[in-house]
Amino acid sequence: MKYQKIPEATIRRLSRYSRCLEEMEENGEKVVSSAQLANKCIVNAAQVRKDLAYFGEFGIRGVGYYVRDLLNNIKKILGLNKEWRMALIGVGNLGSSLLSYFQLMTTQDYLKQNYKVVASFDIDPPKVIGRVSEKLGKPVEVFHINKIKEVVKERRIEIGLITTPPSEAQSVADLLVEAEVKGILNFAPAQIIVPEGFEVKDVFFTTILDNLAYLLSN
Amino acid sequence: MKYQKIPEATIRRLSRYSRCLEEMEENGEKVVSSAQLANKCIVNAAQVRKDLAYFGEFGIRGVGYYVRDLLNNIKKILGLNKEWRMALIGVGNLGSSLLSYFQLMTTQDYLKQNYKVVASFDIDPPKVIGRVSEKLGKPVEVFHINKIKEVVKERRIEIGLITTPPSEAQSVADLLVEAEVKGILNFAPAQIIVPEGFEVKDVFFTTILDNLAYLLSN
Repeated sequence: MKYQKIPEATIRRLSRYSRCLEEMEENGEKVVSSAQLANKCIVNAAQVRKDLAYFGEFGIRGVGYYVRDLLNNIKKILGLNKEWRMALIGVGNLGSSLLSYFQLMTTQDYLKQNYKVVASFDIDPPKVIGRVSEKLGKPVEVFHINKIKEVVKERRIEIGLITTPPSEAQSVADLLVEAEVKGILNFAPAQIIVPEGFEVKDVFFTTILDNLAYLLSN
Repeated sequence: MKYQKIPEATIRRLSRYSRCLEEMEENGEKVVSSAQLANKCIVNAAQVRKDLAYFGEFGIRGVGYYVRDLLNNIKKILGLNKEWRMALIGVGNLGSSLLSYFQLMTTQDYLKQNYKVVASFDIDPPKVIGRVSEKLGKPVEVFHINKIKEVVKERRIEIGLITTPPSEAQSVADLLVEAEVKGILNFAPAQIIVPEGFEVKDVFFTTILDNLAYLLSN
C-alpha cells in the first residue's frame, strides 16, 4: 500500500467509515457494497470509492468489500490498530468533564480500545481530586504537573490533552514537548507553538460556534 | 461592504482575530498594525492582510487598524454583534458537562454576551435535574423534550446543541428543525440529515482524535 498526501476531509470520512464498519461487523455483516456503506455513513457512493482509492484496491468487483478486511485496512491507515495512551492536563471544570466523558465513551464502546486517558495532571492535585468522577469506576489518577516527565515515560503516554486556562496552554505544551509525547489535542482557547514535526489539533468550541454564527448570519 | 464566498479557514482566523482584538481593547490599545495582530494571534502578517482584504479596506496606511473599528467590523461579519440563544438537548454525562462548561465560559468572559444556553431538554427531566451544576449560579432549566417547540419559540432559541446518545441524534435534529431553530451543533457521534439551507456543525471528539492518530502514525 503506497501512502500519498491525503486530504484531511478524506481522513475525516475514513474515520466515519470505520465507525460504520464496526457497527456492521458487530451485526455480523460480512460484505458491503460502496452504495451500502455510503448510505449508512451518509456520503455519496462515488465519494466512498474515491476515498478508498487513495489506498489501493480494497474492493472485489461485483461483490463489494469484505467488512472485516476493509475495517482492518482503514484502522491500519488511521493508526487505530493500536491503543493511544493519553494524559489530560488541567483538571478544572472542562478537564474533569472531559475525563468523565472519555471514561464513559470507553465504557460504552464508542472509543473501543483506541484511546485511553491513563493519567491526569494539575498544579494542585489535592484541590481537584474531588472533581474526578468515581461513578464510572476507578477514576484516573491525578498527579502534580511537576511529575509529568516521569509519568509520561512510565505510562507510555503519546497524546496530551490540554484543558488548562488559555493563559497556561503554552507552558503546558512546552512541558509536553519536553516529556516527549507525540501530539497534543488542545482544548484551551489559545494558539500554541510547538517544534516542527510535532502535531497539534485544536478543539475550540468558540471557534466552531463563531463559524456556525457566521453561516447563520450570511 | 460586499460579501463573497469566504473560505472556512479565513472565518476560523477571523474568530481568532476577534478574540485577540477583544483582549487588546480591554488593555486599552487603540491602534494595531497587521504585524502586531499577526504576532498576537500567531498567524503571519501577509495572511492577516489577505484575510481582512475579503471585507474591503479596514486599514489606514501608515497607521494600521483602529482596534475598536476592526473588532466591530469582524464581529459584524461573523454575526457576533448579537446574542445567540441556545438550547441543549440530552442532559446526560456529556450534556451536563457542556452545560457547566458554557456557564463557566460565559461567567469568565470568554464567550462574552455572544452565546447563551437558555434551556435544556431531556426525555426524563426529574432524573437529570441533579446533574446540572448549581455551583456556577442559577442552573439552566431542564424541560421535557415534548415541550421543545413552545420553549424554542418562547425563549427565542436559534441554535440547538445535540448531546444525546448517537441513536437519538436524528430524531432530535428533526424536532429542532420542526421547532424552527436555525442551526445545530452536533456533539453526538452520528451523521444527521437536515433540510437544504439548514446549518449543522459536527463536533466529534472521536473524529478529531482519529485525525491526530493518523498524523502521528504517518
